[in-house]
Amino acid sequence: MTEPLGMAESVQVVEVGPRDGLQNEATILAAEDKVRFIELAIAAGVRRVEAVSFVRPDAVPQMADAEKVMAQVSRRDDVSYIGLVLNRRGFQRALDSGVDEINLVLAASNSFNLRNQKATTDSLVAMVEEVLDLASSAGMPASVTIATAFGCPFEGEVPPDVVAGLVARASAAGAREIALADTIGVGVPRQVRELFDIARGLTDAPLRAHFHNTRNTGYANAVTALDIGVDILDSSIGGIGGCPFAPRATGNIATEDLVYTLDRSGYASGLSVPALVTAAEFVGKKLGKEVPSMVSKAGGFPRGAAS
Amino acid sequence: MTEPLGMAESVQVVEVGPRDGLQNEATILAAEDKVRFIELAIAAGVRRVEAVSFVRPDAVPQMADAEKVMAQVSRRDDVSYIGLVLNRRGFQRALDSGVDEINLVLAASNSFNLRNQKATTDSLVAMVEEVLDLASSAGMPASVTIATAFGCPFEGEVPPDVVAGLVARASAAGAREIALADTIGVGVPRQVRELFDIARGLTDAPLRAHFHNTRNTGYANAVTALDIGVDILDSSIGGIGGCPFAPRATGNIATEDLVYTLDRSGYASGLSVPALVTAAEFVGKKLGKEVPSMVSKAGGFPRGAAS
Repeated sequence: MTEPLGMAESVQVVEVGPRDGLQNEATILAAEDKVRFIELAIAAGVRRVEAVSFVRPDAVPQMADAEKVMAQVSRRDDVSYIGLVLNRRGFQRALDSGVDEINLVLAASNSFNLRNQKATTDSLVAMVEEVLDLASSAGMPASVTIATAFGCPFEGEVPPDVVAGLVARASAAGAREIALADTIGVGVPRQVRELFDIARGLTDAPLRAHFHNTRNTGYANAVTALDIGVDILDSSIGGIGGCPFAPRATGNIATEDLVYTLDRSGYASGLSVPALVTAAEFVGKKLGKEVPSMVSKAGGFPRGAAS
Repeated sequence: MTEPLGMAESVQVVEVGPRDGLQNEATILAAEDKVRFIELAIAAGVRRVEAVSFVRPDAVPQMADAEKVMAQVSRRDDVSYIGLVLNRRGFQRALDSGVDEINLVLAASNSFNLRNQKATTDSLVAMVEEVLDLASSAGMPASVTIATAFGCPFEGEVPPDVVAGLVARASAAGAREIALADTIGVGVPRQVRELFDIARGLTDAPLRAHFHNTRNTGYANAVTALDIGVDILDSSIGGIGGCPFAPRATGNIATEDLVYTLDRSGYASGLSVPALVTAAEFVGKKLGKEVPSMVSKAGGFPRGAAS
């Protein structure tokens, strides 16, 4: 395994710890700590980061200082800051804050949309279409994430046809990238193959995969996505975050654990495991908890100096 | 995903919590608790269980009461009890205790064998061959596990050729099943494909896969093994156990998390996730710790009754 692995395939890892991770943590971080977390991620090689969301501060207190965070992060030509947006008002805030791109989110489950955004899927699709139009006019790249694509805490099974319909509409409306998200961490590799195969047949937009490790399926799902050619993956440093529907459960797949597997599998991500662990230790300290990632505890592959 | 998945493929899950799991836990359980743990595993559908090891009590205090445990478990025609054996003396104890089968272990790394068994790989191969002969004469089924096949804490990379040589020798010596074990949880799916492909070419014996989740690669490795037709998998209820070479790390892949994925993927294991969680909660309580499995915290797939 020390042999050269040949020309490495590239994988783009989108760091979502500052948004999806922190958003699901009980401890609110100061803006300067969020900025430091983002800078440590960039120092570890992150070049695309979901940094903030522009949502109602009363609904998501952790993201109340989105503008402040965006005003403080260092701007670089080689780093793209993503702002999550749920509606037209959020889009305007994202535009004013100077993010490099937006990510629109709607769920495949109507019950989830009703509870999470107080709106039906149909009305959210109309909103997504409207904001994609506005983004296009403003020259702002916009991706769309389809949440609960692998299962819903309220409805259980989500029919693949429903996911397919949303992929088709997002694509027709001009999404420049479409993500399928396992919001509550119920998905398995079989579904990854099934859903991404369907999506691939419906759009030419690049596909992104977003997995949580709530039931220990997240890394298997990520490896399966790579196997079938999905080469843009979301993850969070430290595996921070959680699941509001499973209070004792953990969050996103951890960036350092994902990159450990990528490194050992011949994929090039541009990310450094030790530097990611440094960032994970920083955010764990600020959150006052041991982060769930494993490589941060076990270390990387043994160097084999001993004996 | 509620549609019938067609004829389910069968997977055999070998429960190793009572041996590999407990052996790496600091808290010593009473024999009657071990027996109760095994009975709960059987109630959850386990039909093959690595129940004990016959090793030196001073080296592995948790296994000092192996004979007592074997004397107390209920014997059933449909349940096979495996005793782990490292040498001729251990084999005699296994025979006297009435286990249904033995599992012999040697590592692919010479440094690991020197530290763990105070013997070179070559001398251990000779020992394995000798015990396989004795087992054959006694009519005792014997499998061989090749430890550190995916990496060694002392040597780092383990050349696949070395693993291949051991597979060939174990096969020639009459092992009725051969396992490749990622003893320290460093393996990735790429290695699973590589090593099992090699093994498959060298033996007609059934292959078994043994993964630890030390670096969050265990479940991806298990799914990959299934993908390439390896349908015998080791796991431990609760994911109990640990890694002596990474003190803060976790143990084997958890049976309930593995079976969650199997259930959602159309594989038939005969195991019940809720009953496995009951067993995990029992052993966690006896060990005085929260077990690392995730399904025991997050619950199974949501039923979707609400909304």
